[in-house]
Amino acid sequence: MLDAAARLARERFAPHWKIGDVEEPRLVDGRVVLPAAVREAVHAYRDAGFCALGADAADGGLQLPYSVVLLCDAQLLAANASTAGYLLLARGVANLLGAFASPAQQARYRQPLLEGRFLGTMCLSEPQAGSSLADISTRAEPMVDGRYRISGQKMWISGGEHELAENIIHLVLAKIPGGPPGVRGISLFIVPRQRIGDDGGVGAGNDVRLAGLNHKLGQRGIVNTFLKFGEAGDCIGELVGPPHQGLAQMFHMMNEARIGVGMGAVMMGLAGYAYSRDYARERRQGRQPDQKDPASPPVPIIEHADVRRMLLRQKCLVEGALALAMYAARQVDQLAASPDASERENAGLRLDLLTPVVKAWSARWCTEANDLAIQVLGGYGYTREYPVEQLWRDNRLNPIHEGSNGIQAIDLLGRKAMAQDGAALRAMLAVVRETLAATAADDALRPHADTLGALLGRIEIVTGVARAAMGRGDARLALANASSYMDLLGHALVGWTWLRQAQVSAAALKRTPGRDADLHRGKLAACDFFFRHELPRVGHDADLLEALDDSTLRMAPGDF
Amino acid sequence: MLDAAARLARERFAPHWKIGDVEEPRLVDGRVVLPAAVREAVHAYRDAGFCALGADAADGGLQLPYSVVLLCDAQLLAANASTAGYLLLARGVANLLGAFASPAQQARYRQPLLEGRFLGTMCLSEPQAGSSLADISTRAEPMVDGRYRISGQKMWISGGEHELAENIIHLVLAKIPGGPPGVRGISLFIVPRQRIGDDGGVGAGNDVRLAGLNHKLGQRGIVNTFLKFGEAGDCIGELVGPPHQGLAQMFHMMNEARIGVGMGAVMMGLAGYAYSRDYARERRQGRQPDQKDPASPPVPIIEHADVRRMLLRQKCLVEGALALAMYAARQVDQLAASPDASERENAGLRLDLLTPVVKAWSARWCTEANDLAIQVLGGYGYTREYPVEQLWRDNRLNPIHEGSNGIQAIDLLGRKAMAQDGAALRAMLAVVRETLAATAADDALRPHADTLGALLGRIEIVTGVARAAMGRGDARLALANASSYMDLLGHALVGWTWLRQAQVSAAALKRTPGRDADLHRGKLAACDFFFRHELPRVGHDADLLEALDDSTLRMAPGDF
Repeated sequence: MLDAAARLARERFAPHWKIGDVEEPRLVDGRVVLPAAVREAVHAYRDAGFCALGADAADGGLQLPYSVVLLCDAQLLAANASTAGYLLLARGVANLLGAFASPAQQARYRQPLLEGRFLGTMCLSEPQAGSSLADISTRAEPMVDGRYRISGQKMWISGGEHELAENIIHLVLAKIPGGPPGVRGISLFIVPRQRIGDDGGVGAGNDVRLAGLNHKLGQRGIVNTFLKFGEAGDCIGELVGPPHQGLAQMFHMMNEARIGVGMGAVMMGLAGYAYSRDYARERRQGRQPDQKDPASPPVPIIEHADVRRMLLRQKCLVEGALALAMYAARQVDQLAASPDASERENAGLRLDLLTPVVKAWSARWCTEANDLAIQVLGGYGYTREYPVEQLWRDNRLNPIHEGSNGIQAIDLLGRKAMAQDGAALRAMLAVVRETLAATAADDALRPHADTLGALLGRIEIVTGVARAAMGRGDARLALANASSYMDLLGHALVGWTWLRQAQVSAAALKRTPGRDADLHRGKLAACDFFFRHELPRVGHDADLLEALDDSTLRMAPGDF
Repeated sequence: MLDAAARLARERFAPHWKIGDVEEPRLVDGRVVLPAAVREAVHAYRDAGFCALGADAADGGLQLPYSVVLLCDAQLLAANASTAGYLLLARGVANLLGAFASPAQQARYRQPLLEGRFLGTMCLSEPQAGSSLADISTRAEPMVDGRYRISGQKMWISGGEHELAENIIHLVLAKIPGGPPGVRGISLFIVPRQRIGDDGGVGAGNDVRLAGLNHKLGQRGIVNTFLKFGEAGDCIGELVGPPHQGLAQMFHMMNEARIGVGMGAVMMGLAGYAYSRDYARERRQGRQPDQKDPASPPVPIIEHADVRRMLLRQKCLVEGALALAMYAARQVDQLAASPDASERENAGLRLDLLTPVVKAWSARWCTEANDLAIQVLGGYGYTREYPVEQLWRDNRLNPIHEGSNGIQAIDLLGRKAMAQDGAALRAMLAVVRETLAATAADDALRPHADTLGALLGRIEIVTGVARAAMGRGDARLALANASSYMDLLGHALVGWTWLRQAQVSAAALKRTPGRDADLHRGKLAACDFFFRHELPRVGHDADLLEALDDSTLRMAPGDF
């Protein structure tokens, strides 16, 4: 499947990545027009059997572990995140229905998703309430037959309208009148674009109106829509599971969705790194500071220290984030399938902690990596004739969607690191410390391990400081520097992946000296670079957290 | 003039900023087509008397100090950097001709530039030699009449072809055969797009062919061209001054050009800050961590700590960079006009040091500020319906052009900080220390002053370490972390501007408590934020420099 995904990515997804950016989705007579290649890629994906990769064999799926599924996704995301988006959304809808929908709903809506006949969306945000689901105002009025009449507006809906499939299954968060206020009153509804008849056939339209397209900075290939449900009073939805469980149900999908966003950021970072590295090896310009003879030939720019800095930084950010995302994916698999209950519990704890880090840290720092790729190419990197500027624009969405990075940081410090008296952090740091102990005999890695060990101690201290402030009822102060906590923990965990990568590479170089020696030497150099150049940046974040710095809280809104 | 510039910016430049992005310059039958509004803005600028703002009264100029000229430019750059670009380039050409061209050349070429009849370009880069002027291959063969026959290719030429003016005066760097190798053999030539007759009339074309347009990520409103000179053997140029002085002549303009780039970056940063601040005051979403009642109204997002962090960081980066750019501009004026010879000398030294910092630091950190503006707006910021994404794209050019940031860093550490045994750094740090001494009586500012004072000591140490390595002949190692030196010195100098701003605001709040109190409180809070959140980031850069870290040099090109 990995080879098949690579071929699909190369042959069907990559070739129209740029086309999707230039020929943006547009409205023609009320219909969304996309480049033909998008449809061809969606069909090729379906025909190659990718729609049910992770689903149970009983449902016609391949029952692959999530870590393998994610590696398939990763190749499509690297090639064309926009077109991949249609398919990953459909899988998310199918998974959610698999977990909570009734057998009849599964037959009607999920099976066609797994077969690739339908696509789907997640309809959470509203124009007045982007990240604040407590304030959504979409309503679901019960009908006598047990179904619901849906009315409201949903914003930022990727894949919200198109003709790539027979139907689009919208999963819509809405409130049933009379329910509890805030997020506890949110329910989840299946709202198909076209109604499904009792025979399973695709029927008439369901009063879901495309009210507009959003025109984005990047990821233009996936249509982003503003949808109005039930303007004519005739939008029918089906409740999924019991009422008022919508948020919990949606969060069931969040770990995988957020790891997927993080992986998308990583793959764009990796694509930019690979391109700028290859460019720097070919492009000749300038000389070394001590080469004064203008008759000497210009050197490949990879010889310049500052170009190397920009390449090494990209490498250590994106390859480190990749390793962390894959580790998180393995926790998903262990949580689902480990025969050992305590290992399942620990995997679940680690996954809870890792999810916001994989999403937010990767999104931020892999977009930064794309910025460096542009800089390596110089003027050429600033033109649309080269791919690095589009990677940068595409990646810039990742710190915003699926819960903005600021919200992820609050989730990490305020919930994940605090829950169960810090059990998730303990579970994760225990694994990191196993790695540190394993470096004791390695003279080259021990200094880095000592640095990381000291930083873990600081993480525990600042977590305790935040916990104490929460205990005093001062959640605002405790969370004021949550973004610093994200960088601090993220850098520490990515540093841990570099120690692990260095251990593997050091052992491989000893075992079979010639084999892949460039790869392994590169890993060792990148580990060194991360510990010398990158990790020390977050010492200051720890200082701010330890001091419960209140700079942001003291500023009056009128004084900006 | 400042009011006139503000009106011009508002009425003639801002309205077509977005249009220039969408209706990119395009070729129609070999002609460059631009939106009509660009031409109207260029004419309005000319008619308002801006073409000769800084020129001598004897040449019909207003003889304004550079710092006033820069503040006029700044308003146009904030409104529409692309359209302003045509005009700033023309002024640069006029200034260069004013310094080095013969009286006859000045009459023929410079006077029409000052009158706004001509525009101009700087033709330095070539496709195979972007930043490496030693390797340019454009040739200038002497003709019997003393003029030269030019042949070669020039890349990245902004404003290289259009019909906004009667003529375009290209200033072209080229080599006269038989001259010294490398940069010492470069001469400067006037190459008009249309030849000028003896009567000063605009005549026939001059064998300058538009070979292509570059399609950029941002700043799309100013046409960027690939030009071929003398393909038909009939491109005639005039030498400016003596042969082989081209690089020195061009560098005569560099201080102002680079301060102009830095100011452009600042103004885009400022525009993004203002927009995201106003948005954050209006947009209501979410609640504080301790506000659990979902029936309470959502708060303006400026109440959220992380939004304030993003606003405060923008404010301290862009307003700090603005203050530094204006200080540099005043050194230009003192260098030109101070009656005191030693003050002129010191101003020149400070200007030499500041120029690469104003260019590179502003370009990097004000683009980062634009990234934060996008994040404040969230999904809306990612759409092209809001201005912040275009500001980010436009600003991304600034770390690349006019000498890339990596080259500025090498210039700063390798030349400016080293020359005359460090005289420029001494001249600048002496001024900073005067400010530190003046805070002795201020309890609120003294801790920040002490922090900055300690950092100045570190700057002197790491500069000495680099000097010693240079002295040992190890320029590669000395300059390996030049980008860290740029961040270190830039942050220190911007911290200095914040101390100065805070001193002014503290005094004003005491003197006239009610007046502009929000402005002054905001300045004090931003100063605090800079010293608590931003300045400590560069301690690590000092560590790398002090250790002469060789991570980048040790990496083998094949191992990336």
